[in-house]
Amino acid sequence: MTVSGTSSRSVKLASGDEYPLTGLGLWKVPQAECADLVYASLKLGYRLLDGAADYDNEIQAGEGLNRAIQEGLIKREDVTIVSKLWNTFHAAEHVEAACRRSLKDWGVEYFDVYYVHMPISLKYVDPKVRYPPGWSYDGTPTGNLVLEDSPFHKTWEAMEKLVDLGLVKNIAISNMAGAMIADLMRYARIKPAVLQVELHPYLAQPNLVRLARAFNIHVTAYSSFGPVSWVGISDSVVAKCESLFTHSVIANIARSHQATAAQVVLRWASQKGITVIPKSSSEGRLKENLQNESLDLSEHDMDAIDALDIGLRFADPAGIDPRLAMYA
Amino acid sequence: MTVSGTSSRSVKLASGDEYPLTGLGLWKVPQAECADLVYASLKLGYRLLDGAADYDNEIQAGEGLNRAIQEGLIKREDVTIVSKLWNTFHAAEHVEAACRRSLKDWGVEYFDVYYVHMPISLKYVDPKVRYPPGWSYDGTPTGNLVLEDSPFHKTWEAMEKLVDLGLVKNIAISNMAGAMIADLMRYARIKPAVLQVELHPYLAQPNLVRLARAFNIHVTAYSSFGPVSWVGISDSVVAKCESLFTHSVIANIARSHQATAAQVVLRWASQKGITVIPKSSSEGRLKENLQNESLDLSEHDMDAIDALDIGLRFADPAGIDPRLAMYA
Repeated sequence: MTVSGTSSRSVKLASGDEYPLTGLGLWKVPQAECADLVYASLKLGYRLLDGAADYDNEIQAGEGLNRAIQEGLIKREDVTIVSKLWNTFHAAEHVEAACRRSLKDWGVEYFDVYYVHMPISLKYVDPKVRYPPGWSYDGTPTGNLVLEDSPFHKTWEAMEKLVDLGLVKNIAISNMAGAMIADLMRYARIKPAVLQVELHPYLAQPNLVRLARAFNIHVTAYSSFGPVSWVGISDSVVAKCESLFTHSVIANIARSHQATAAQVVLRWASQKGITVIPKSSSEGRLKENLQNESLDLSEHDMDAIDALDIGLRFADPAGIDPRLAMYA
Repeated sequence: MTVSGTSSRSVKLASGDEYPLTGLGLWKVPQAECADLVYASLKLGYRLLDGAADYDNEIQAGEGLNRAIQEGLIKREDVTIVSKLWNTFHAAEHVEAACRRSLKDWGVEYFDVYYVHMPISLKYVDPKVRYPPGWSYDGTPTGNLVLEDSPFHKTWEAMEKLVDLGLVKNIAISNMAGAMIADLMRYARIKPAVLQVELHPYLAQPNLVRLARAFNIHVTAYSSFGPVSWVGISDSVVAKCESLFTHSVIANIARSHQATAAQVVLRWASQKGITVIPKSSSEGRLKENLQNESLDLSEHDMDAIDALDIGLRFADPAGIDPRLAMYA
């Protein structure tokens, strides 16, 4: 994995494919805004679109992408397009169909990176019944979670077949912790190219990043801004910390570089070679986020931000069901 | 899993076998003291001996056990004998031989519980060359760690065969984190009966305990006394906390119950139905430790000790090699 020196920076995955250091995350992007947001981001220079079946906006993301392609703004091969296998499709016989559904929704022939969204296997829900299926088997917001016994090594075999079929260029993992990654490395015929995890100054995960690097797995951070993404979802955790945007350590560094707090927080990760995938509905902030890469934080800045790590995690399905405590 | 009401308390494993709430841990017990310590503990009423190939004292532990049996102090079936598969024996073809070696060393026909010591697979070392093999492939203390690609699901299949062969009554896991346990539950034909992990007031692991319970896996705590076991091994972590034996919260509770701090710390776990396996070379403290079960801590006591949790882990092989960051 080497960081290339071009203006739109990217890292090289184990496969040789390029993966941008800054992308657009599509989690929580409303369908009504998604096509325009994707189109705008491509116009601004974004070349990584991080989607997922579960985000319920792949059709709209594909509209924005294909508008940009049709207008000659970009070519398909210029953009790294990402989707993710949802928890209800872990049984080997459902993986290909789930991937093809996402491909069809995006209107593309292949994904650059296809992740297993979580190492959690929920009972299959027929897409004709409900799509995306979400967490509960019966579709109610409050419950009826049903696990399914699809071992991860079987799911991974089915993921490898997607590469063989040419449907995806790289397969990857998300929300996976150390020991299970090490186990996957023992049996994977095609190794995971990327690990996407929650990572921000309050949850810096140095040991996990070191492990991923030792296994030549590129790291992508989600929830780079920490608590701000979780207001209204994990308020009890949000209450435990200050907004990173107003934290004095971040604010002081931002001031000294004439940058925004958001740029500093993003650059703290991207300067370590970690991809960030912020989202914003404002064109100004989209631009500002992408420009994080032009910042050059000092070792002193980096250390000061590293010191904010308190191991605070916002995304933890343990609260849904104790058997989902995948970070315990 | 139900807690039985007899004087020497035990819990019932999923298999129906009994597993005492307090046992003797044999980690770090010198060979020269091991036989007498095991014998003394059995005389005092201990009925759980927690050994492992890696502890390098199974022959001596077996001597103490068999002395007690020969003298009619106990019968084999009265004692829960535990051993653990070391990291270098994870390849399916080495599991049975490793178990038989430990059985021979103990001088017993079967183990009540046989654990996979860690979800870490190191390159095989022939026992003729070095036994126990330890961490580094070449036997030097400082290095040459070589991983081996034995996937855990293959190791577990070989563990299941030990049950089929009658060599072990229950198979179990140790040092395993949440997502990997959930995955094991998906493919295990014979489910893990026990999960043994570091657990003490500074590392209470509530989510992991809840996950284990939801999967009907009994929990055993090691390093119940926290930092005191790690002086000289993990001094930089030890320096981060006060001894539990002098901590005012523990000391006050001990005083109010006319108990020792050690008893309070042990009882905090055993009262939750978690097995503890302290060791001591003093007969007085062995007795005192076993008697933790007679304490009845109030809800207020338990909450006060729960509040000491700072997620502080002493046993973490991440320091040996970044690929071993099994708790990251």
